[in-house]
Amino acid sequence: MIIVLSPEATPEDVERIVRRVEETGHAAHLSTGSERTIVGVIGPDLPVLQDMFETMTHVESVHRVTKPYKLVSRDFHPADSVIDVGRGVRIGGPEIAVMAGPCSIEDEAHVVGTARAVRAAGATILRGGAFKPRTSPYLFRGHGLDALRFLATAGEVTGMPVITECMAVADIDAVARYADIIQVGARNVQNYILLDEVGKLRKPVLLKRGLSGLIEEWLLAAEYILAAGNPNVILCERGIRTFETSYRNTFDINAIPLAKELSHLPVVADPSHGTGKHQLVAPVSRAAIAAGADGLLIEVHPHPERALSDGAQSLTHEGFASMMASVSGIAAAVGRTLATPLVPA
Amino acid sequence: MIIVLSPEATPEDVERIVRRVEETGHAAHLSTGSERTIVGVIGPDLPVLQDMFETMTHVESVHRVTKPYKLVSRDFHPADSVIDVGRGVRIGGPEIAVMAGPCSIEDEAHVVGTARAVRAAGATILRGGAFKPRTSPYLFRGHGLDALRFLATAGEVTGMPVITECMAVADIDAVARYADIIQVGARNVQNYILLDEVGKLRKPVLLKRGLSGLIEEWLLAAEYILAAGNPNVILCERGIRTFETSYRNTFDINAIPLAKELSHLPVVADPSHGTGKHQLVAPVSRAAIAAGADGLLIEVHPHPERALSDGAQSLTHEGFASMMASVSGIAAAVGRTLATPLVPA
Amino acid sequence: MIIVLSPEATPEDVERIVRRVEETGHAAHLSTGSERTIVGVIGPDLPVLQDMFETMTHVESVHRVTKPYKLVSRDFHPADSVIDVGRGVRIGGPEIAVMAGPCSIEDEAHVVGTARAVRAAGATILRGGAFKPRTSPYLFRGHGLDALRFLATAGEVTGMPVITECMAVADIDAVARYADIIQVGARNVQNYILLDEVGKLRKPVLLKRGLSGLIEEWLLAAEYILAAGNPNVILCERGIRTFETSYRNTFDINAIPLAKELSHLPVVADPSHGTGKHQLVAPVSRAAIAAGADGLLIEVHPHPERALSDGAQSLTHEGFASMMASVSGIAAAVGRTLATPLVPA
Amino acid sequence: MIIVLSPEATPEDVERIVRRVEETGHAAHLSTGSERTIVGVIGPDLPVLQDMFETMTHVESVHRVTKPYKLVSRDFHPADSVIDVGRGVRIGGPEIAVMAGPCSIEDEAHVVGTARAVRAAGATILRGGAFKPRTSPYLFRGHGLDALRFLATAGEVTGMPVITECMAVADIDAVARYADIIQVGARNVQNYILLDEVGKLRKPVLLKRGLSGLIEEWLLAAEYILAAGNPNVILCERGIRTFETSYRNTFDINAIPLAKELSHLPVVADPSHGTGKHQLVAPVSRAAIAAGADGLLIEVHPHPERALSDGAQSLTHEGFASMMASVSGIAAAVGRTLATPLVPA
Repeated sequence: MIIVLSPEATPEDVERIVRRVEETGHAAHLSTGSERTIVGVIGPDLPVLQDMFETMTHVESVHRVTKPYKLVSRDFHPADSVIDVGRGVRIGGPEIAVMAGPCSIEDEAHVVGTARAVRAAGATILRGGAFKPRTSPYLFRGHGLDALRFLATAGEVTGMPVITECMAVADIDAVARYADIIQVGARNVQNYILLDEVGKLRKPVLLKRGLSGLIEEWLLAAEYILAAGNPNVILCERGIRTFETSYRNTFDINAIPLAKELSHLPVVADPSHGTGKHQLVAPVSRAAIAAGADGLLIEVHPHPERALSDGAQSLTHEGFASMMASVSGIAAAVGRTLATPLVPA
Repeated sequence: MIIVLSPEATPEDVERIVRRVEETGHAAHLSTGSERTIVGVIGPDLPVLQDMFETMTHVESVHRVTKPYKLVSRDFHPADSVIDVGRGVRIGGPEIAVMAGPCSIEDEAHVVGTARAVRAAGATILRGGAFKPRTSPYLFRGHGLDALRFLATAGEVTGMPVITECMAVADIDAVARYADIIQVGARNVQNYILLDEVGKLRKPVLLKRGLSGLIEEWLLAAEYILAAGNPNVILCERGIRTFETSYRNTFDINAIPLAKELSHLPVVADPSHGTGKHQLVAPVSRAAIAAGADGLLIEVHPHPERALSDGAQSLTHEGFASMMASVSGIAAAVGRTLATPLVPA
Repeated sequence: MIIVLSPEATPEDVERIVRRVEETGHAAHLSTGSERTIVGVIGPDLPVLQDMFETMTHVESVHRVTKPYKLVSRDFHPADSVIDVGRGVRIGGPEIAVMAGPCSIEDEAHVVGTARAVRAAGATILRGGAFKPRTSPYLFRGHGLDALRFLATAGEVTGMPVITECMAVADIDAVARYADIIQVGARNVQNYILLDEVGKLRKPVLLKRGLSGLIEEWLLAAEYILAAGNPNVILCERGIRTFETSYRNTFDINAIPLAKELSHLPVVADPSHGTGKHQLVAPVSRAAIAAGADGLLIEVHPHPERALSDGAQSLTHEGFASMMASVSGIAAAVGRTLATPLVPA
Repeated sequence: MIIVLSPEATPEDVERIVRRVEETGHAAHLSTGSERTIVGVIGPDLPVLQDMFETMTHVESVHRVTKPYKLVSRDFHPADSVIDVGRGVRIGGPEIAVMAGPCSIEDEAHVVGTARAVRAAGATILRGGAFKPRTSPYLFRGHGLDALRFLATAGEVTGMPVITECMAVADIDAVARYADIIQVGARNVQNYILLDEVGKLRKPVLLKRGLSGLIEEWLLAAEYILAAGNPNVILCERGIRTFETSYRNTFDINAIPLAKELSHLPVVADPSHGTGKHQLVAPVSRAAIAAGADGLLIEVHPHPERALSDGAQSLTHEGFASMMASVSGIAAAVGRTLATPLVPA
């Protein structure tokens, strides 16, 4: 961190500020220019220290120089992390991982049927919602434990690892028992209690970016999980909230290459939430893979107009198969492949 | 809800759509124009139904007509709700409620000292952080249970009810034992599990707006708490995230009169987080009261440059007293008063 | 400006970067720490130089230290600027300046009628639109020159200086002939050609903030006008575009005290555009004055439901009078007055 | 447009509202339900009418049903528009159009050198800035007329049509004399005077989206040009302003397929401004083509660290060639081609 003093700072001011830096446990490095004195703070650049120094008299500005996260940083771990999610599926390697399935799990037949359909089209991970965060208390909130069991059955039957969202610390054990990947949703990316708890597991965690989450905040949320001991984190860009009202969210394509530059963790894309409109899902899926994403998370429903949630952004089985065909050429163009369809169990 | 069909819709399409409306448990009211048929859906306008109908073939657009919340709505409860928070203090009535205190509680002497100072200046509720949501896992996260006890002692000594944030379901009992008002923070406003749980209590809950939370989402979050049985909710505008980088957040002054128009719940302002800059706290506090806010939530620290968190936006004891003097005239101009300082216990 | 080199930078890299700084006409000041070398660039901190240095190999980050504007800065001109707009009216002094009138000027009787009404209620400047920027080519775009004449007549009759928007360089002469204050609208705040041209006049210019304009960009737009020779600039906050859809714009109350801290220019508020909803205009007007605004710009129409533009945000004559009464108490509370109503000519 | 009346509306209210609709020159279609009366307004859905009706007593809400633009709409013109920009180059057909060159034109040798380099790498249109909009009055604003001549020469020498920005009505003739495509920049997309004037020409116009421009506003800006008589408009997505600070702008990938769905006009992408970071230009270029963009606009400079503007986002000649190679595979994957390199003149 660099503290720039104002031209009026006296030698006593400089001394006072240096002393304050040292009290926080950091070394100070002084640099006296013709107009201004600059104090370098040796150590990690925590935002809180920036705040603190900015309030001091005769401090003109404070600049962070180093990144506030460490374990998730590519500086710390230059090679790509590849995460094994079970049943032979890995995320972050040359194969693109496609996770697909219904927004909400309705019953066993429903999820098994969709599982077979998405697998046949090339998906290798099954997604499905058991616990649903809903903006209104009057909306369907998921079939809970029953849905977890249906999902596990569908994974078993089709040989696919499964992913589902966990919203509450109290549900972690149940979700971890049935799921191969635990999803932390956009609304919980700053639920630090939940991050701490999934950090105590070794199960892979898919961490969505917040609705208005800075890239830095997203990486710091991942840092919580790694700092607690779990290195198996997959980042997921799912669109941000902007002024534009034509779509539910604005998919932030810039975030894909930037997150991969800053971090070694795999980065996947959720174009279903990132657009909120089924007709945009295929073009934005292609775009995400073209920009370097390691995978996709796609909502699929046999009859979107009857879905209990998110119908407007769900692909039909046919729509999904057609999307996969178009993504496949893009994957090849960037030197990657879609994962080989697994042989049915 | 109103479903507008496209000009190409045939009588069979109309019938299919009406049938779908009826399957969702709503009555359909048909209106046939020269160009288009319009289907009115009688019942609550849930966003999920809008999504569902929008995916149907030959549906051109779907418009919500009624509000998705009920218990928090002023239509449902026209008179202002006034919430008794204990020790004779009420929020939502003619007296402006000022909640002040440190961002983080550091030790007993610290919080008692600040409590005395803010009370002497006219605050009637003591705020202080025991559990702190922090963007980085490496930052100070609050003194927890010890801090709760220090806060309760400071409330006791000065005769003020106390407010503190609860971040986790597991902490609700402890927080409810020591605090008179439970704060749900901006990062947890869509933590629906937590909302359900504080809804089971009768303790007043101060509910902050999310960083990128729509007014409608904020009111729906409050609806969760009321629907679970707890009518004692206080809304708190604390700034939203925008493109502007000169301040930490952009205080949304429009939200104050609009939330009061839409809902009967009290609305208070947090200009400390709403600006992130101590020198903007006094003018924005005056603005919030001028716009109709029922109270203020202000961070105060004896030495902001030594605060363990949020120093940049904290007022000194002197700064707080001076702010209160300037707010007092504004309160009078809008026909309200600052709460009478309580006699020390 | 401060250039932070990466730890890998060799002495040759340092030399190369210093040479580049010197080629741009700036002196370089070197500071060698234990881990990193820092190069201070002596001179104005232009964003373009930041861009340039950031692209250089082994430059880790570049930080601006000084403000990019000068003439508008309070550092350069510590006292408040008070701008004489004619007929004895001044903006920026102890008297709050209230500018009111119709969004679009419809005919002479209309604008004279509204002028009398707003003057009787305490406005001292008459606003009215002759040239209207409209998002659609099929909307009413103002009565142009005729409207300018009606406006000037209404100003004459009521003894009020008048303000109207100028959208085109070709119209500047006509607008300057009839108007006492030239308004540059939100959509033209980065129309640098127009800024240059109004900078060649001495007529006061009211400069709105852009829909997504940073405070710094707004002040730099004002700097264009001052740099061209016209010191008579009035800043106008009119709401910014955010994710919130409940109002047309989000009035940025923080901008009022911050713009006054950074600049000596008067700052006025436009709550009509800042909210887009007539029922929010009075509370946000009070808020703006409470936060330190030097004036208000308010849309008034005898029959808002018949207005040719912006009906939803216009106050009736009665609504305006009632708003003025409530603002008057706020002005007094912050030690200011509403301008004394002028004696009719 | 649909006007929903509140349940309290009496038959007299209904009559009054119908009369008002008819006064605006539209037919009204009444539909009386059990709870509410709905008035359908037959005719184009102008936002101004929505505003007007919303202010009427007992109007609960007003909903727009039809799009406010016509000539740019795909409903009106279902087939893709393909725009001939001269020298055999067309935009909107199966060949991807790549426009590349320097942000600012520095001298003839500079632009000719870059022109040869980008052409050799497969670009078919040369871009270069002669008039530059700059946020500060103290920055380099382009070499103007001289730069136009250098650009035209470079186009002549390499056989490429050229594109450059026009910021002022006064410059239109000069720009139109030298350029094959006139660019209207993001800051001028709502400069309606300029739109009217370029609409009087037949020269192709590349119209950028505004920094905080809604898709609808962007299409309405294009409608201005078509309504004035010029059908040759190319839309250009160049990133929007969001809360994220890691990049200069957030490239809105959703806008590419949505603009192509709503309009028949070609849509190109500007990843240089859309990211502001040279290392993101290649991945976002690939993404844009994968999502259906008809072309790219790329800033290239032989020595970005010496560029007079936008160095941070410029590709080197080598970087551009490498980007083109990676884009080529993506184009093939979506059934398109990069335009065949032209034979040097």
